[in-house]
Amino acid sequence: MITIPDLIRKKRDGGQLSDDEIKAFIQAVKEKTIQDSQTGAMLMAIWLNGMVSAEIKALTREMMSSGEVMEWPDEWKNFMVDKHSTGGVGDKVSLVLAPALAACGCKVPMISGRGLAHTGGTLDKLESIPGFKVEQSREQILEILDSVGCCIVGQTETLVPADRVLYALRDITSTVDSLPLVTGSIISKKGAESLFALVLDVKFGRAAICKDLESATELAQMLVEAGNGLGICTAAVLSGMNSTIGRCVGNSVEVIESLETLKGNRPDDLMELVTTQGGLLLVMTGLVSDLSEGRKQISEAVVGGAALSKFQAMMEAQGVNSDTAQLLCSTNADYYSILRKAKHQLELKAPADGIVLEIDGLVLAQVLHRLGAGRSKAGEPVNHSVGAVLLVSIGQRVTKGDPWLRLHYEDLALTPDQRNHLESALTVGADKKIQTQQKHTLVEKILPEKYQ
Amino acid sequence: MITIPDLIRKKRDGGQLSDDEIKAFIQAVKEKTIQDSQTGAMLMAIWLNGMVSAEIKALTREMMSSGEVMEWPDEWKNFMVDKHSTGGVGDKVSLVLAPALAACGCKVPMISGRGLAHTGGTLDKLESIPGFKVEQSREQILEILDSVGCCIVGQTETLVPADRVLYALRDITSTVDSLPLVTGSIISKKGAESLFALVLDVKFGRAAICKDLESATELAQMLVEAGNGLGICTAAVLSGMNSTIGRCVGNSVEVIESLETLKGNRPDDLMELVTTQGGLLLVMTGLVSDLSEGRKQISEAVVGGAALSKFQAMMEAQGVNSDTAQLLCSTNADYYSILRKAKHQLELKAPADGIVLEIDGLVLAQVLHRLGAGRSKAGEPVNHSVGAVLLVSIGQRVTKGDPWLRLHYEDLALTPDQRNHLESALTVGADKKIQTQQKHTLVEKILPEKYQ
Repeated sequence: MITIPDLIRKKRDGGQLSDDEIKAFIQAVKEKTIQDSQTGAMLMAIWLNGMVSAEIKALTREMMSSGEVMEWPDEWKNFMVDKHSTGGVGDKVSLVLAPALAACGCKVPMISGRGLAHTGGTLDKLESIPGFKVEQSREQILEILDSVGCCIVGQTETLVPADRVLYALRDITSTVDSLPLVTGSIISKKGAESLFALVLDVKFGRAAICKDLESATELAQMLVEAGNGLGICTAAVLSGMNSTIGRCVGNSVEVIESLETLKGNRPDDLMELVTTQGGLLLVMTGLVSDLSEGRKQISEAVVGGAALSKFQAMMEAQGVNSDTAQLLCSTNADYYSILRKAKHQLELKAPADGIVLEIDGLVLAQVLHRLGAGRSKAGEPVNHSVGAVLLVSIGQRVTKGDPWLRLHYEDLALTPDQRNHLESALTVGADKKIQTQQKHTLVEKILPEKYQ
Repeated sequence: MITIPDLIRKKRDGGQLSDDEIKAFIQAVKEKTIQDSQTGAMLMAIWLNGMVSAEIKALTREMMSSGEVMEWPDEWKNFMVDKHSTGGVGDKVSLVLAPALAACGCKVPMISGRGLAHTGGTLDKLESIPGFKVEQSREQILEILDSVGCCIVGQTETLVPADRVLYALRDITSTVDSLPLVTGSIISKKGAESLFALVLDVKFGRAAICKDLESATELAQMLVEAGNGLGICTAAVLSGMNSTIGRCVGNSVEVIESLETLKGNRPDDLMELVTTQGGLLLVMTGLVSDLSEGRKQISEAVVGGAALSKFQAMMEAQGVNSDTAQLLCSTNADYYSILRKAKHQLELKAPADGIVLEIDGLVLAQVLHRLGAGRSKAGEPVNHSVGAVLLVSIGQRVTKGDPWLRLHYEDLALTPDQRNHLESALTVGADKKIQTQQKHTLVEKILPEKYQ
């Protein structure tokens, strides 16, 4: 019989683990028959020696099978869709896309996460809405999908338990950013949602996990292959992530921006991401015949208000008082009558006349993290009210002294160092040449052949 | 402040850890503030990315300092010597060398180990002598060194506690055979003995950890450098390890062969190892001026009976009844009136006429291990009586049906497969060409420059 040390040795020596060997490893993780030191050694061996495509496929499948796999009514099966983003600053795509897809006839059982980096995750953002419950049972999810068509919920205890264990250990052993492990973690959870189609938004740039297009492409290909390996139609978009998505970064400020987008006051970059990802999913489900038609339907669902209605219904189905939901979704809503506003606001001023050449999203996120918008350890609370709103956009001409950023903060004020750091996020210059990567233009789509 | 994940990441990325970083890692291991998963990941990162000389030096020093470091009377300081072997089949050098060195005026605080591989370790061998106590306190060790000059004892709880933790984790994470980790483990323990001089016997060949001369040379150089880094005069010999050392393999049979050697009935290969290693130590302590004089003194101590007297005194000092000790050391001793004999003996016969071309030490060790002479897990008992005695030597002419091996075994008998395996250890042929590596000729010595 092959032992755990044998498996570790094989990966240590650059060998390829068989399906049975990966199954044995993941079962040992699930059943806690492997010691933590052994898991740590295996994770490092995988980090350093990588995995080939067959190993990643087996890893993803075994992780998925370590827990409950959701089941859906037959009539829904071809319309079950979801998206996953590798993480951006101000990434609120899910909040707009889930209801837009529901409005187009899809079922969206979006299982999302809390933030563990610079700013909060999708669940943290939604929890800034009083009453919003992200913990929903399997039965409740079925009910919400039946009545609304979309939900955005947290991972249940029974879903992919092996990932829970591995993620906690990856976090403390510096083995988070291994492409095979990232792929296993992301796709196994999507597999457990029993999706028909999945779109991945793989970010690259200064404020993303993948620092360049090359590594993002490699990750995207790995994710697409693993997704398709589980029988899910999987596509990916590659998008630049140097600045921010939209103009708001934080938790409640992003909810506000999402609601404004759902009311048609859309930031173009956010809508580009929403319509592309939504359009791809509509193509894959067969609801439309090509991407331009898909984009159009998603755009119309947002602009025409159908997506807003779905978002309102989803809030109510997930515990938000109906008056509150209605007020948030009304035209000219007074958001801060419902969402808590941070105690203090501060506007930063442009240091000189010129063109806005660059806004560094990573710097914004790092400072907001320090001020309480993000968490450093799983389980820590986040402050929903801390955030930042950009008052300018790239390419815009500014005059010295013009406000360019409004910061929402609490008792924990900016230190002089943090203020300098935050101010360094803005680059103003005479040169009209703007970094192309500052824009969120989608540089590439990876789409299964039959849909190309 | 640098965190454990930062340290792991640095080594993962091929960086060189600073002295302070290695100190932080070893302190965390000692104080159990590092999680096992993190230690596992770090061990694997070290296994895969290695360590440069400065890192190994720091690792060795910090491991040594994790526990008690022995102190000796001033007048002993220049005569404190010890040896370490990387492990051979039938390796009983310590049992002859320690008393020979004591007879030449050295102090030998030999802290040895139990076997965790094919056959028992030095402590297991000595424990086949009724009454022999390998556990001795620091005060007892001082007393025995004062009265006898040598002792062979087990590691105390307070000596290099970091190694105890790391070794247990290396064992289960397949990170045992990393040259930097092996070096840290061996040399830190010798450093804690506060030696003046140390000789290392680095084995290479089929039955050794290092399979070839090249890797053995690399390890030897690392060990010598680390030893000298702690201020210990350190030399190494490289010796072939394909067959066995002497003719006996097991626990009590090796004690008998050691006693016979101390009575002058020496197997040449064993004496070659004893006189070279002992001679080098005598040179390094300044007790003799060159290696040939050193060899001569060691040889005379063995042949003249002075070493036997020291062995007898050491046995008594370590708990053996004086009648027993005397009987074992007498000429024509009836060893099996004192040492327990295995229930069964079996002689294997030569399959054909010819010259003994090869005897595979690894095969002998593997079969003896299965029959109970070695242990697979720390803490398991070993059977002291199981063993094998070679009745022929390499280069000898044999006739079909001549006995070539006497096996001592207990109720656990040889399976047909094991018997086939054991029989495959002998190669008899017409060709007179004998593998040179079958001999234990020392191929090289690594000696600090000032002694060359």
